Amino acid sequence: MTSIKINKPIQINHDRLQKRLIELAQIGKIQETGVCRLTLSKEDKQAVLLVEKWMGEAGLSTRIDAVGNLIGQWTGSDDSLPILVVGSHIDSQPYGGRFDGTIGVIGAIEAIQTMNEQGYNPERTIEVIAFSDEEGCRFDKGLFGARGIIGQLEEGELERKDINGITRREALVEFGCNPNEVENAVYPKGRIGSFLEMHIEQGPILDKTEKPVGLVTGISGPLWLTVELKGFAGHAGSVPIPYRQDALVAAAEITTKLRELASEEPEAPTVATVGKLEVFPNSRNIIPEHVRFTIDLRDIDIKRRDRIENKLYEAIDEICDRHKVTKTITVDTKSDPRYCSDEILEEMRTAARTLFDESLPEMMSGPFHDALAMSSICDFGMIFVRCKDGISHNPKESANYTDISLGTELLYRTIILRSNAKEE
Amino acid sequence: MTSIKINKPIQINHDRLQKRLIELAQIGKIQETGVCRLTLSKEDKQAVLLVEKWMGEAGLSTRIDAVGNLIGQWTGSDDSLPILVVGSHIDSQPYGGRFDGTIGVIGAIEAIQTMNEQGYNPERTIEVIAFSDEEGCRFDKGLFGARGIIGQLEEGELERKDINGITRREALVEFGCNPNEVENAVYPKGRIGSFLEMHIEQGPILDKTEKPVGLVTGISGPLWLTVELKGFAGHAGSVPIPYRQDALVAAAEITTKLRELASEEPEAPTVATVGKLEVFPNSRNIIPEHVRFTIDLRDIDIKRRDRIENKLYEAIDEICDRHKVTKTITVDTKSDPRYCSDEILEEMRTAARTLFDESLPEMMSGPFHDALAMSSICDFGMIFVRCKDGISHNPKESANYTDISLGTELLYRTIILRSNAKEE
Repeated sequence: MTSIKINKPIQINHDRLQKRLIELAQIGKIQETGVCRLTLSKEDKQAVLLVEKWMGEAGLSTRIDAVGNLIGQWTGSDDSLPILVVGSHIDSQPYGGRFDGTIGVIGAIEAIQTMNEQGYNPERTIEVIAFSDEEGCRFDKGLFGARGIIGQLEEGELERKDINGITRREALVEFGCNPNEVENAVYPKGRIGSFLEMHIEQGPILDKTEKPVGLVTGISGPLWLTVELKGFAGHAGSVPIPYRQDALVAAAEITTKLRELASEEPEAPTVATVGKLEVFPNSRNIIPEHVRFTIDLRDIDIKRRDRIENKLYEAIDEICDRHKVTKTITVDTKSDPRYCSDEILEEMRTAARTLFDESLPEMMSGPFHDALAMSSICDFGMIFVRCKDGISHNPKESANYTDISLGTELLYRTIILRSNAKEE
Repeated sequence: MTSIKINKPIQINHDRLQKRLIELAQIGKIQETGVCRLTLSKEDKQAVLLVEKWMGEAGLSTRIDAVGNLIGQWTGSDDSLPILVVGSHIDSQPYGGRFDGTIGVIGAIEAIQTMNEQGYNPERTIEVIAFSDEEGCRFDKGLFGARGIIGQLEEGELERKDINGITRREALVEFGCNPNEVENAVYPKGRIGSFLEMHIEQGPILDKTEKPVGLVTGISGPLWLTVELKGFAGHAGSVPIPYRQDALVAAAEITTKLRELASEEPEAPTVATVGKLEVFPNSRNIIPEHVRFTIDLRDIDIKRRDRIENKLYEAIDEICDRHKVTKTITVDTKSDPRYCSDEILEEMRTAARTLFDESLPEMMSGPFHDALAMSSICDFGMIFVRCKDGISHNPKESANYTDISLGTELLYRTIILRSNAKEE
């Protein structure tokens, strides 16, 4: 069901796009609809070679850089202008879906191929990139390829190991890359002018509101905390309530409080989650002595997020004091929100007006994407495509091919504007 | 520190008692002070043989029954009277302490040996029992030996397996028992008149109030529930709060509510605990889809426990509805409280008056003991000995040998009264 009317015929090739997405989903296929295609794995390499072939069919000249990014280039009529990069990733979660990342890569290739077929020539050079290791699940640190081209890899990152003890360095060699040349992957300063990414929403807003496509206004900054509470174990039957130092009761109150704080402004897009929680000794008749849990707090409004963070710390202090529990709070990640470029958003709105008879919903992205890394060196814009029930990172992830075509068409029209492409 | 004055010299042999407890603690010793002596293990057998030797030294005639209980008998002058059983267990938790159970067995032997040395002869037959598998951790079902003699073993119980796949039947054979004769372990109806057990408190009340010994008024009935909540997973960054079905937020609210309910009557000994809680998929940026946790609720007042149970179910309904989370509640155990016999309590108070210059604290037992099983066929009484900080089921478990001697002396004086023993 789609409540937006489409008022122009679409130019991109729906059947080719769908066929490629289905073919790509066979590599590393799990269950009926899922994919397991870990970065730098054999499946990932097979997928990269297939996508490279399609890039060639779209008229792009291709290369794989030292960090494992697959890059297809279309040199514009004025290569001295800052270039336009379009892309996403084709690696997946271990228990992932077939649309996460892939539609942004295959969609970009489709857009370029259509431009070629329609006789457009870009003024700016365009590059389509399938970024290496967006997911980060194999070496527990993501956005690797995107950070690689912007010079933001960290010390020791090549020595990170996967669960089998294989380092990223070894995996890169196996993949056919030369990890001694990772510095060569970095683009000269100013070379990249803007970045466009299409991605499934990975959330339920478009699905609930029955819109096929949305525009992203920014990527909310995640605050990631790990909280460790230490109480005192005791027999569940024998320690009177007033004597207890129950770490799980304290963790439960903090979890409840976090939800309250995130709900204080009902119209705000603030989200907060305790996703991981572990109890020690985790025995039915022993009072929990030690609880370790994560907090994920996101907001597009950094001031509101900071206010909530401070209120949360106050609440944690009060709760821990009351339960005679000690705490250690570690800040694992604290990113500021990144806003999409107004200029690109305006171009996307313009492109959308040529395609839809009403304006598209505009929304923040809670999850981060390759665009988050790219935002530190250039303007960026993102298109979201509806996914069923908002499910992602799961074989049940599902998106409608018509929606993907509409997103791709919007991407195609935005690329034409952004690259200043002329018809022959 | 002890705030009770002792106003009579103690008769039992403090040094012998302490020496035996220390020697027993060498079998299966872990760390400096801990013990790992799983039921029917080699260590357990070695311990049983040592304790059997001490029973012999105390003048008891010994046997090991078909369920692995070690039984030492002293035939009274009128063996037709219902007998007095005294005892506890010498098996331990895998990561346990040296006092849990053992003081009740070694203390009983010491009491009998002192009676013999002091020239007492009981009218009633007395048996000291070191019950097999009180802890229940090896085959995940405890009070085995006690249930064995009262005819309450369950169908298929001998086929339960430990983590190495060894059945209890096999372990019994290895231990030297004949599992085909378990029915022979059952005592004739009416044969056992009363049961006395001394045990460390496994809670902090005596330690906090600086009393060496306390009298038990009853064993509170545990209600054990397993609650499974099923929500819906989603990306922690992208699912707006109103759309969430977060199983962990619901579990946290239930945990908080349970604590509230258990604290409603501040003077009541009600205790409630969520000891075990597991989250799926347990990933920092995924909304918890599935949470499974245990509830342990105990009270000596069954009406109050029932009231709390009903309020809890109402709260779970409301919380799950509000969070759009489905629930499954399994009742794993629902025991009524068991009250100590008034007559035995009165005898213990009488005995205590000959030993202390003030009355002993009287308290409910939260943990259950061999006495819980025995309570279904006979009167029972229990003596608690202070343990440091209330710590138990932990190598750090610690009790003062002077306190143990005082408890043993009280046990000795109670046995004399209970067995109607006469001095020669």
